Parts: sequence; structure tokens; C-alpha cells
Amino acid sequence: MERNVARLRTRLAGLGVGMRPHLKTCKSVAVAHRVMASPAGPATVSTLKEAEHFAAAGVRDMIYAVGITPAKLGQVLALRGRGVDLAVLLDTVAQAEAVAAASREAGTSIPALIEIDCDGHRSGVRPDDAQHLLAIGRALQQGAELRGVLTHAGGSYAARGDEALRQCAEQERRGVVEAAAVLRGAGLPCPVVSLGSTPTAHSAADLTGVTEVRAGVFVFFDLVMAGIGVCRIEDIALSVMATVIGHQRDKGWILVDAGWMAMSQDRGTSKQAVNQGYGLVCNLAGEAYPDLLLADANQEHGIVTVRPGSAASLPGLAIGDRVRILPNHACATGAQHRSYHVVRGADMAVQAEWPRFGGW
Amino acid sequence: MERNVARLRTRLAGLGVGMRPHLKTCKSVAVAHRVMASPAGPATVSTLKEAEHFAAAGVRDMIYAVGITPAKLGQVLALRGRGVDLAVLLDTVAQAEAVAAASREAGTSIPALIEIDCDGHRSGVRPDDAQHLLAIGRALQQGAELRGVLTHAGGSYAARGDEALRQCAEQERRGVVEAAAVLRGAGLPCPVVSLGSTPTAHSAADLTGVTEVRAGVFVFFDLVMAGIGVCRIEDIALSVMATVIGHQRDKGWILVDAGWMAMSQDRGTSKQAVNQGYGLVCNLAGEAYPDLLLADANQEHGIVTVRPGSAASLPGLAIGDRVRILPNHACATGAQHRSYHVVRGADMAVQAEWPRFGGW
Repeated sequence: MERNVARLRTRLAGLGVGMRPHLKTCKSVAVAHRVMASPAGPATVSTLKEAEHFAAAGVRDMIYAVGITPAKLGQVLALRGRGVDLAVLLDTVAQAEAVAAASREAGTSIPALIEIDCDGHRSGVRPDDAQHLLAIGRALQQGAELRGVLTHAGGSYAARGDEALRQCAEQERRGVVEAAAVLRGAGLPCPVVSLGSTPTAHSAADLTGVTEVRAGVFVFFDLVMAGIGVCRIEDIALSVMATVIGHQRDKGWILVDAGWMAMSQDRGTSKQAVNQGYGLVCNLAGEAYPDLLLADANQEHGIVTVRPGSAASLPGLAIGDRVRILPNHACATGAQHRSYHVVRGADMAVQAEWPRFGGW
Repeated sequence: MERNVARLRTRLAGLGVGMRPHLKTCKSVAVAHRVMASPAGPATVSTLKEAEHFAAAGVRDMIYAVGITPAKLGQVLALRGRGVDLAVLLDTVAQAEAVAAASREAGTSIPALIEIDCDGHRSGVRPDDAQHLLAIGRALQQGAELRGVLTHAGGSYAARGDEALRQCAEQERRGVVEAAAVLRGAGLPCPVVSLGSTPTAHSAADLTGVTEVRAGVFVFFDLVMAGIGVCRIEDIALSVMATVIGHQRDKGWILVDAGWMAMSQDRGTSKQAVNQGYGLVCNLAGEAYPDLLLADANQEHGIVTVRPGSAASLPGLAIGDRVRILPNHACATGAQHRSYHVVRGADMAVQAEWPRFGGW
């Protein structure tokens, strides 16, 4: 984990931009302290629960990077009233009008970023839709603060190969910089130009015009990121420990006490070149067994078997033996657990237990 | 929920067997009290955390229905020492020997059931493998208690139609009763003959020889169960409330603030005749909009759209409007939340908040 954090920090420093890590992956103050530039942030969150939790731990600079609804503005104002510079995100005039009205009513300007849709994968205003961008910006200026523009290249998760990833990163940069130019060209402020995803953060060759990069899963990495090619299997810093509870020898199955409750049901690698099932099975030192997968999962049962078509043989694991399972998606697997058991060094001894939180 | 519980209770009473509800679905003392025959149980659990939690709430009769590992026997003994009749499950001689050895060492007999594999879907001993059954039974008798046999017709989740479901239920019954006969025929005790799954519990026509039925998801039901045909959409007692956060009108998308973190990534209906995406979208009264699905989900974003091929139109939902989303799998969706907001009556007013727990 420390190596993963240092790697992205060094990379972004070389490109001359700061990092605003997304704390939705870890949901842990202990991890956040090791990822953020300072204990006060900056940081990105995906829920107001995260904003509350990290604010209580001293984080003072956050973007809530999911489109705001009017009913949440009271909580945003309360957090801001406690000295937290929490900014919201939006992509409609209706939201901008609600944020401006709430700002006027509270007598304080809520900062908002306009979400830009750089690749059509989800939400946001298209960067060339100048009319919509300006309408939102002007609506915000009726009491709120136009803080800038923000985009997320979610489409990069489907990219394969260095060149495709670099193109995603450049498309992400171009889109958000173009949107900033539209606003500034009309005399509107746009101090923040924010972009990011782990694949593009690790692939961008140039970030001219960008003020900050957001990324989340880079802290742990996972099998989906390894499949995309932005990390190696041995960089994955999160695993689920499981114990052998049985065998169906005629089927080549080892049963373990980790099912989807422990792993999540994320099957993100099923669309990649190498389908890793519900996870890749390793020994206790974290070294992957050849082609050994958590092939199927019920709530608390996992079925471990050799990858279809592989010549590898099933390892001799007995009742009570333990394995580590690498997850497809660290954000999803982490969310199934109440804490992290922190290991360090070749003996993988547990050094600490870091709580994590969930809910909304 | 109350109607669902009453329905299965009445059905099983008519078949002359008791219910041992599986509390892995609810993980809530408040729900458990409404599902169990008495505050002391009986009940089924899928983790020792559940056993601890429900024991602390007064449940005294539980089966931990996931294959036991030797390292967990200390916790089992500690729970039993506090007056909880907690039985374990196993399907190998190695486990039976470990349970017998731990029993001898502790000077108390740990009760164990032998898991029977009635349909090849997961773990258990095949009912016709008399040699293995007797070897396990005899190993247990070296200090432990052979409490009986237990099976789960997990294959019933793939069955379609009343006749196929009845056949699954009869296969489940026949398998576990046959295994009991093998043990008894060799002079071994087998007081408990336990089976169950929600589809078979609602389909069995005859439960001769069975002493108890286990089922879990019947309490809430879900879209998978509706797809199997054991409940109607309007019987589903669990939903996730979400708020509209945006639109991509040219794509026919409504964005909501419920993604896979709120719904889970269970896509159980994707293999059924009607694929419900990540969930079926309803109005606040719980009435489904025609063919409106949570079609895609990121961590905190959901994309709502009309089912492909449907002639239905997108409802006129504005920023801030709220919907309820019915889940594919109640066990998985419930696990993403820290509590239930309990509603009753036509106005769906929140009457109570019931905490739920997670972890191991």
C-alpha cells in the first residue's frame, strides 16, 4: 500500500499537479492519513457519511463528487459551518438554482463544481455544450460559488493497452480543460480543473491546464486494475483470508469459508481478457497459486478450483489450511468488511487493525 | 414482511414440521424476533458472529450451517459454555475427528450434523455414500454428539415452474431422509433431519421424515424469488430508497444516488427469464414503474432506464424526486446497510429503525 501511494504521488509530482485522493475506496481514517497530502486533505468523497467521518478526523478540504440533491444541502451547510470546505458537484441548472437558493438563504456561498462528461459513460455536461455550461455557471453565481469543473474518465476501465489508456487520459484532460475555457471565455471563474481515475492517473503523459487529480483504487489496486495493466498482481495490497472447510474431490473443488459476503459480487474481470472469477487464490505469503480461482461463491461458501483449460493442478490444501484471496475490485471487497488487518514484512504478521466505516 | 413470515409458518405447520429460520438474511435481532418460533429460537446462522450476536439477544438453539474448521471450535465451545445449544456442520472425517478431539479435551460433547449433498451444487456427502457417512458418524462418536443430517437444495434456485420446484423439494427430502436411514441402519443416532431453501420450503408437498425446515430469504423475498415464482413482486418487503441526481436525456437515462454500494452487485436475475438489472424501480408507495430498471451501477451512481425492447416510457422524475428500488437478492442488498427503516401502512411512514450487523 505504501509503495502504491508513493508511486502515484511521485508520478503526479512529476506532472506538476496535486492529488485529491478519493477516500471511497478505503473509508478509513488510518488509510486516509497515509494517502492525503496532509491531515487536512485535500480529499474526495462519495457520500456525506464519508464527509462527516473524515471531517470529524480533521479533513478540511473535500469535494463530494456525486451529483447533489437539494435535500442534502442542509447537511452540506452544517459541515461547512464547522469549518470544512466541502464543495458539491452538479450538472443541471435545476441543481445550480437549488444550491444558489440555499446559499442565499444561509447567507454563505456553497462552492460547486460543474461535472463534465468526457466520455459518455455516466453523468455530466458535454464539454462542447457551451450553452448548458454557461447556464449552470450563471445560475450558480446567483449566490453560490462556481469553484470549477470536474470529470472522471470512467470509460478508461474498458481501455486496454498503454496507447488506449493514454488516449483516455488525454480525452479526459481535453474535455475538462475545454469546459474550463468555455466558462472563462464568458468571464466566469474556474479556479479548479479536476480530473481523475486510477487508470488515467497512471497513464496521463501531460496534464496541462489541470489543477488536481483524483484517484481512489490506486491505494490498494486489484485484479481489474492488473487486467487493465496499471499494476502487477504483486502490487495488490488487499486480500481476504479464508480457511478450507471441505473438498469435492471428484469435481476438483476446494470449499472455503469466504463467499460473496467476504469478496463482494464484483465480477469486473469477467469482461477482461483474463477472467479471475471471484478472486485469485494465493498462499499465506500472498503468492498466487497457478490458475487457482475462487470460481463460485455463495453467501459464506466459496468454491476454489483451477481455471478452466489450465494444466495447473489443485494444491494439496487440507481442512483448516488458510489462503489469501485477491479481489476483483478493492472498493467493493473492502466494503464487505469492518476493518483492515494490517500486515507488513515477509512474515505477514498483523501489526494493527484499522477500522473502516460504511453506510450513508 | 409479516405476511411473508405468516405464509411460510402456516405452510410448514400444515406439513407438520417446525421452522428453523436462517438469520443470515436479516442479521437483525428485531427481525429475528418476528421470524423465530420463540425468542430462544430455533435458528440457523452462517457465521459465528451471527451466533454471538443472536446468543447475546437470548437465542439458545442454533445451527452454524457452514462447514466447521478446527480453529473455530474454541469459540463454539465458549458459546456452548454460556448455555447456547450451538451445533456445527461437517462433511469430512477430518472435521469429525477434530470435533471429537475438541469435545474430549473440553469434557463436553459438541453436537454436529453431517452435511448431505442432495443436488451436487456445493458441499456435503452424497446420500448414497454410506461408507463415508458411517465413517464420519463413527468418528463423531469418539467424544462428540452425532445430532443428525442437514441438506440445502441450492440447486432449486435454478429451477423454473411449480413441477420442477416440487421435484427439487422431493429430491432434497429424499436425500436427507436416505442419509438418516443409513446412519440409523448402522445403529447410529440421527434425531435431526434438517433441510431447506426458500424455493423448496414453499414447494414441498410432503416432508415425511423431516424434523425441521430452514429458509432465510422468505422473510423479505426479492426479484430472484419472484423470478423463480415463489412470490409476487408485491410480496417483496425490502427496497432501497434513492433520489434522482441527474438525467442524460438523449440516452434515456435517469441518474440516482444508489449504485452497487446500496444495491450490492448481485445480478441473480440475469440468468432468469426476466433480467431485472440491478433492481426494479418503484414509486414511493412501492408500485413498480412499467419496465423501469436500475440498468447499471457504479459505487454511488445508478443509471435508471427503461428495459431494452420495452414500449414503456421514462417517467417524469425530476432532480430530488425519490424512488424505491427492489433488490435482486435481499441477503446481498441488506448486507450493504447498517439498519432497516421500517414502514407500515399506505403512507409508508417510518415507524422504527432496526439495526443490523455484519462482519465475522
